[in-house]
Amino acid sequence: MSKTTKLWGGRFQERTNPDVESFTASVAFDRRLYAFDIAGSIAHAQMLHEIGILSEEERSAIVTNLQHILGEIEQDRFDWSDELEDVHMNIEQRLTDLIGDAGKKLHTGRSRNDQVAVDLRLFTRSAINIIIEGVIEFQETLLERAESEHATVMPGYTHLQVAQPITFGHHLMAWFEMLDRDRLRFLDAARRLNQNPLGAAALAGTSIPIDRQMTTDALGFDDMCRNSLDAVSDRDFLMEVCAAIAITMVHLSRFADEMILWSSDAFGFVQFSDEYTTGSSIMPQKKNPDVAELVRGKSARTTGNLQALLVLMKAQPLAYNRDNQEDKETFFDSIDTVTDCLHIMQKLVENMSVDQENMRRALDGSFSTATDLTEFLVKQHVPFREAHEIVGRIVRSCLDSNTTLENLSLEQLNEFSPAFSQAALELIRPENSVASRDHPGGTAPKQVLSAVQKGRQRLEQAWSEL
Amino acid sequence: MSKTTKLWGGRFQERTNPDVESFTASVAFDRRLYAFDIAGSIAHAQMLHEIGILSEEERSAIVTNLQHILGEIEQDRFDWSDELEDVHMNIEQRLTDLIGDAGKKLHTGRSRNDQVAVDLRLFTRSAINIIIEGVIEFQETLLERAESEHATVMPGYTHLQVAQPITFGHHLMAWFEMLDRDRLRFLDAARRLNQNPLGAAALAGTSIPIDRQMTTDALGFDDMCRNSLDAVSDRDFLMEVCAAIAITMVHLSRFADEMILWSSDAFGFVQFSDEYTTGSSIMPQKKNPDVAELVRGKSARTTGNLQALLVLMKAQPLAYNRDNQEDKETFFDSIDTVTDCLHIMQKLVENMSVDQENMRRALDGSFSTATDLTEFLVKQHVPFREAHEIVGRIVRSCLDSNTTLENLSLEQLNEFSPAFSQAALELIRPENSVASRDHPGGTAPKQVLSAVQKGRQRLEQAWSEL
Amino acid sequence: MSKTTKLWGGRFQERTNPDVESFTASVAFDRRLYAFDIAGSIAHAQMLHEIGILSEEERSAIVTNLQHILGEIEQDRFDWSDELEDVHMNIEQRLTDLIGDAGKKLHTGRSRNDQVAVDLRLFTRSAINIIIEGVIEFQETLLERAESEHATVMPGYTHLQVAQPITFGHHLMAWFEMLDRDRLRFLDAARRLNQNPLGAAALAGTSIPIDRQMTTDALGFDDMCRNSLDAVSDRDFLMEVCAAIAITMVHLSRFADEMILWSSDAFGFVQFSDEYTTGSSIMPQKKNPDVAELVRGKSARTTGNLQALLVLMKAQPLAYNRDNQEDKETFFDSIDTVTDCLHIMQKLVENMSVDQENMRRALDGSFSTATDLTEFLVKQHVPFREAHEIVGRIVRSCLDSNTTLENLSLEQLNEFSPAFSQAALELIRPENSVASRDHPGGTAPKQVLSAVQKGRQRLEQAWSEL
Amino acid sequence: MSKTTKLWGGRFQERTNPDVESFTASVAFDRRLYAFDIAGSIAHAQMLHEIGILSEEERSAIVTNLQHILGEIEQDRFDWSDELEDVHMNIEQRLTDLIGDAGKKLHTGRSRNDQVAVDLRLFTRSAINIIIEGVIEFQETLLERAESEHATVMPGYTHLQVAQPITFGHHLMAWFEMLDRDRLRFLDAARRLNQNPLGAAALAGTSIPIDRQMTTDALGFDDMCRNSLDAVSDRDFLMEVCAAIAITMVHLSRFADEMILWSSDAFGFVQFSDEYTTGSSIMPQKKNPDVAELVRGKSARTTGNLQALLVLMKAQPLAYNRDNQEDKETFFDSIDTVTDCLHIMQKLVENMSVDQENMRRALDGSFSTATDLTEFLVKQHVPFREAHEIVGRIVRSCLDSNTTLENLSLEQLNEFSPAFSQAALELIRPENSVASRDHPGGTAPKQVLSAVQKGRQRLEQAWSEL
Repeated sequence: MSKTTKLWGGRFQERTNPDVESFTASVAFDRRLYAFDIAGSIAHAQMLHEIGILSEEERSAIVTNLQHILGEIEQDRFDWSDELEDVHMNIEQRLTDLIGDAGKKLHTGRSRNDQVAVDLRLFTRSAINIIIEGVIEFQETLLERAESEHATVMPGYTHLQVAQPITFGHHLMAWFEMLDRDRLRFLDAARRLNQNPLGAAALAGTSIPIDRQMTTDALGFDDMCRNSLDAVSDRDFLMEVCAAIAITMVHLSRFADEMILWSSDAFGFVQFSDEYTTGSSIMPQKKNPDVAELVRGKSARTTGNLQALLVLMKAQPLAYNRDNQEDKETFFDSIDTVTDCLHIMQKLVENMSVDQENMRRALDGSFSTATDLTEFLVKQHVPFREAHEIVGRIVRSCLDSNTTLENLSLEQLNEFSPAFSQAALELIRPENSVASRDHPGGTAPKQVLSAVQKGRQRLEQAWSEL
Repeated sequence: MSKTTKLWGGRFQERTNPDVESFTASVAFDRRLYAFDIAGSIAHAQMLHEIGILSEEERSAIVTNLQHILGEIEQDRFDWSDELEDVHMNIEQRLTDLIGDAGKKLHTGRSRNDQVAVDLRLFTRSAINIIIEGVIEFQETLLERAESEHATVMPGYTHLQVAQPITFGHHLMAWFEMLDRDRLRFLDAARRLNQNPLGAAALAGTSIPIDRQMTTDALGFDDMCRNSLDAVSDRDFLMEVCAAIAITMVHLSRFADEMILWSSDAFGFVQFSDEYTTGSSIMPQKKNPDVAELVRGKSARTTGNLQALLVLMKAQPLAYNRDNQEDKETFFDSIDTVTDCLHIMQKLVENMSVDQENMRRALDGSFSTATDLTEFLVKQHVPFREAHEIVGRIVRSCLDSNTTLENLSLEQLNEFSPAFSQAALELIRPENSVASRDHPGGTAPKQVLSAVQKGRQRLEQAWSEL
Repeated sequence: MSKTTKLWGGRFQERTNPDVESFTASVAFDRRLYAFDIAGSIAHAQMLHEIGILSEEERSAIVTNLQHILGEIEQDRFDWSDELEDVHMNIEQRLTDLIGDAGKKLHTGRSRNDQVAVDLRLFTRSAINIIIEGVIEFQETLLERAESEHATVMPGYTHLQVAQPITFGHHLMAWFEMLDRDRLRFLDAARRLNQNPLGAAALAGTSIPIDRQMTTDALGFDDMCRNSLDAVSDRDFLMEVCAAIAITMVHLSRFADEMILWSSDAFGFVQFSDEYTTGSSIMPQKKNPDVAELVRGKSARTTGNLQALLVLMKAQPLAYNRDNQEDKETFFDSIDTVTDCLHIMQKLVENMSVDQENMRRALDGSFSTATDLTEFLVKQHVPFREAHEIVGRIVRSCLDSNTTLENLSLEQLNEFSPAFSQAALELIRPENSVASRDHPGGTAPKQVLSAVQKGRQRLEQAWSEL
Repeated sequence: MSKTTKLWGGRFQERTNPDVESFTASVAFDRRLYAFDIAGSIAHAQMLHEIGILSEEERSAIVTNLQHILGEIEQDRFDWSDELEDVHMNIEQRLTDLIGDAGKKLHTGRSRNDQVAVDLRLFTRSAINIIIEGVIEFQETLLERAESEHATVMPGYTHLQVAQPITFGHHLMAWFEMLDRDRLRFLDAARRLNQNPLGAAALAGTSIPIDRQMTTDALGFDDMCRNSLDAVSDRDFLMEVCAAIAITMVHLSRFADEMILWSSDAFGFVQFSDEYTTGSSIMPQKKNPDVAELVRGKSARTTGNLQALLVLMKAQPLAYNRDNQEDKETFFDSIDTVTDCLHIMQKLVENMSVDQENMRRALDGSFSTATDLTEFLVKQHVPFREAHEIVGRIVRSCLDSNTTLENLSLEQLNEFSPAFSQAALELIRPENSVASRDHPGGTAPKQVLSAVQKGRQRLEQAWSEL
């Protein structure tokens, strides 16, 4: 290729050094934007026709042949070239090869700077939609399992110590809530980014009498970017989406961590089928929760990706700098990671089996209903702090004599406080304890069912808004 | 202090090791939450009265004395104790010292887990309001300066190379846009976090017949948290706000970086007064842009803080773990940093003087209007890529003969293309170039004024919604 | 204070804006460097005397009065002032107040840029020493406990599933090894940073005929920094030490996480005394491993601090920029965090009690010796992969008939392979399994004792080199 | 493929779900380790022969066929399969396909856990060597350019304001010093990681009577890992190398940033050839320093990768967890990034042209020698602080009367201090100023040459130690 074949080669005398060419080429990863690049170019071409830059013939040739190129790419018959640097130049060059002069007119009134900005926004808008679908599908699975397990009694933990009895359905609904916030965070990001950068050109607009409203409408943007310098240099939407992904992955990592704990020999609360586990190359008996471990591990990369983007953007004066080429790989990686992890976690939860007996057994002798005894005393008008102290001493006494709350008689309780009555003994049973925490957000089975019900309504609404 | 003075000491036989006490105490930093802790306790006490746990007398004693304690703290007469661990226990103990048994009833139906969650949400809600005010005030300053500089011509840069002429007002409005997105991001976060965790108690609700709607209304929450496990373990709002702060600080760092560049001897575009600069301990002539450098530097800590929070949350199974105590210092640091930096940057921009001559001079001989020549040819029906190539060759030729576009005659232009006419020569003047990019988002002075106008309207709206 | 009281005020006409003064002041945190600042100044003064800048009288006045100031600071009688910006100017001004003109000569041939660099290096050198002591002390505790537990059989985990029997002593020695690498990493950092920046002055040296070797020797540096621009802008040592701290804290977090797991009701392997745990404000029975949780949590901040420093340094052109003021708070925080966490973890491990029965019981029915059966077959010349497959089928069969390896007879084993003999049955006992892994680095009790022995020697060596 | 074809399939009844298979497969990226995997397997096979597990025939078949497989892979004729999960299983299966039973014996006494650990250590050792070569080559280029530019006078900057005159050679040597520390940091890491994990097997060693010293020697390790649990779970070396890379990339980013500044129109200190720059798709005149911008941008990803690894490791209890599979992609990315960036920066510096006139001109009227005047007064026994104040007033007076130091007469100087003499006027010339800072580490041309000389010696030493 002669030096002049670079589409920007006019003022250059020497051709690019091959090391530089390979160091700077981005087509290996930005080709992923092809469909959005073509959609943006078609909208731009339509507009150039409306304002008289392209004849009807030229417009039609451009549109038809861009669609043809789309086909070539999707059928993997497109010949990508590093020398042509990026997805934009590869497609433009191919177009010109196909239709000649008309192709050379397409870049009128735009620059790669606003072109890549529009590609990225369209890509992100679409990617967010896929992520949200993944979130909702996982939420649906959680609702179903929470419904079946609404009355399954298990220990609730704080500090990983048994705290109070809860229902498994209630625990699953905690996950549901985290995902619900994630979903809304993605929606906010999608709404905020839906502005059209086209028309910003290199950094400051163009003297071509473009009609920005036309491309804005054609591409389904809510508005146009209001400042051209900002339009080409803004990558807030990548940082914001990467932050939302990092938070979602923190959630998935926490779920995964609990799965690993619960499927351990020590807990034995859930089990994964052979299909969802793998073995060991040396130990014949092993069946490992690899899927959950990988999800936990993968949250690390999304945190790293977010940091990379923040560092990347911080260093730059206005307007566009080539540093921005580095925004794509990290961003794509976060998008793919969260999409895959949502899907596989949904499947894992859908397929896990629950050992209700083990869950219930983990409460035996755990003092998990000590708080219920305390609250019993409060209802008998013992000030809370005193009640807490009294029950603390009961626990201490049980530990010293190696017994448990379950084994105490009313007489024994009365040694600590005359306010205890027969009803107090009832509260020591986890099932009663659980049922008594019967207010919105509480763990009583009834409340869990009600939460599931409301969750279903929210998801119906969510689907309808996609 | 005997072992039993810990408010949770009933079941313990030995007192806490002093090393442990100082390692785990949080009162040195969480005391900052005192006003919100007291507001939450008052709402809780009112509710406990309504449901019959507290008599009118007890309720009144609690409320009055909590307000008294508030006064003590604000007048710095409160005696904080590490032994009492945190802000919650310090205030509760003081209350009990003042009013006896009624104080011991306050903690009925709640735990420190939901108490700290409500404190943090109230604090964050208030802090976001202050940040948004800082954003708007900075935006107002930018509008004013952009208005005055709407016609000041300067180089626009890409790759830090002179790209095309722009107006300084247009550049300032790019900053305005970044801040506008920041503002909306904070608003979204504030809206999302405005839910009441009270009633979640330790992790799973309480058997006390609490009325969560009552505290929700009293504390100005939009809704109540829907799941108790989630309510005590959720710190999404801290991560989300820290991410919004990190992005805002990336913006401020970019502004600061440009300030440093522009005030350098090499650029000389702006100057800071003596009041806003500092000197050198060794070099008598130095006047340094320290404020801007510190803002640039401080964005590093907000990025680090976000990372710390993500790492912190990832590691935890449900529900509350003591790790969460670590959420506060990093979060407070980010809050303070962005608040201070917004204020100081606003002052810096307000007080900088602009050297319009230096700005204009930086365009001389810079080929910054080469794109205008290209677009001129396009309007004469030369395909854009050909026009680009032609003008590229003109630039090359100027460089070779050591001249500039400004010095070319029509004849010389015509050697490269017959399509050039007298009008093309006009476009070489930066003032004409700037005026010609006259579409929404473009740099034409007229468009800048219109952007300022619309910006004013948005800020009026923003103030009214605070 | 009049405008001219700034020590760099000569060329300034207006005094610093109070907002700027408080925004830029660093004395609130850099005063921590006072002892090193004074040590550096004394060495500098001695040198200035040797080269004839200071008379013997002046030298002596400076040295004596700097020592006096040291006393004032240590007795908290020093009056720090924000207006004097930083630790350097505060001390210099006080010196001049005490001794007049001689004080004004001290800053000859140096700048705050090399002064703060020397302070920071001296501080870091000293801080690393303290950290290494903390590491060694923790290692010593681990050696002691590993020795006592060298034959305590417990499950070894991979994927948090029971993998093979190990000894608890062996597990503790894994922690020992991690800390050993940490120790060496700190030593490398200390060695690398031990170079003298004094003489670099503002950025490029001085025309005063200084003798850099003299201050290098006086301050115990191995060498002098070889390039003045680098000397004042280099913060590699902070990044490197913060990275070493972050890695150490990742280790401590992993230990802490295991402590939390092991002290949970589900595992029950270790227990912490009342002294090293705390209770719940609502649940009277709770005894929480808060110390371990906080250590796990605190590793987050050291990761964030490292990130902050990397971000901070990346943004800066040579040489000194004010951004660097931001290096201190994050760095100090990492130093303090790791120092405290090493100490508290050492105490926690020292004081934990081990439940050897629970550890042993966790192996019952766990198939943890399936690998031993496999290796038995290998010794009978069954190819490993076949042996693995055979034992896999044995495990499968046990699971299907709800039995365990311990219950199998030789006849049953022979149904799967004729190669099994009586000796195979012996291997199913965890004690035998553990004893058989008897090579350097293996878990056999004998190997653990040998590892403890060698560890002792290494620590003796380590102490001797401090 | 039937369920039993998994090499660990014995105890499983159902085959792995295809989603799980693709989610967990690592062969797409860990195949990069093939050469080290084969080297490790050959050493292991030799050892198994020595201890009598493999016959001479088997040993020989394994070694020969592993070498054959190496050839297949290098010639891209190897058929990688996701179903076989990773590089280890792919190669082992192929070996067994080629030689039958002997292949099934290779995995005796080892696990993928120690196998991947040995692969990664061998890979890292080799990668560090390549990085160090890249560092040295860049350092050599810097030495050469520093030598040519040892007397080129330019402004030295602090706070990006002209501070004092320096030589360009001196500035380049600051970069040299940073790289020198980087080099040593990599060497330390390489030394620390050079320990043999083979023999750790799954986590706790093996009952096979292996000889760990034999594989240690064969693979060129300095020592063997001392604890088997640690050996399989330790990824410190990845964190440490990633930290060293992140710091190196911070340095390269700082160099790149200066390159961008210096090649800007405003500075004009250096120029890149057409070969090392690229153009704009819209602006025909542009020639952009893309290479430097990408290097600056790429430092972001290495910071993100380090964070990802720290987060990854923090979350894990001992010993091996599948999370660790996530260590490779981020690590490989950092390795490749730093290798490429070192190379391209070396070429960029080698090929840049320096505009000595512009550098010199940037000192005109800059007051850059004010410090020299101050130090002149000091030599006349004026206390430094007074001298600083006097010269500060001279600068002030010049600014007020719009003149520069160069234009002052002795009379004018004497108005401010009688201590000025004719010699003072000489010092105002940057060349004299530069020459006077003539001590080790100073900017005097003589000192720069001496630093270059010593740098050459260090690099000779460095090459000899590789």
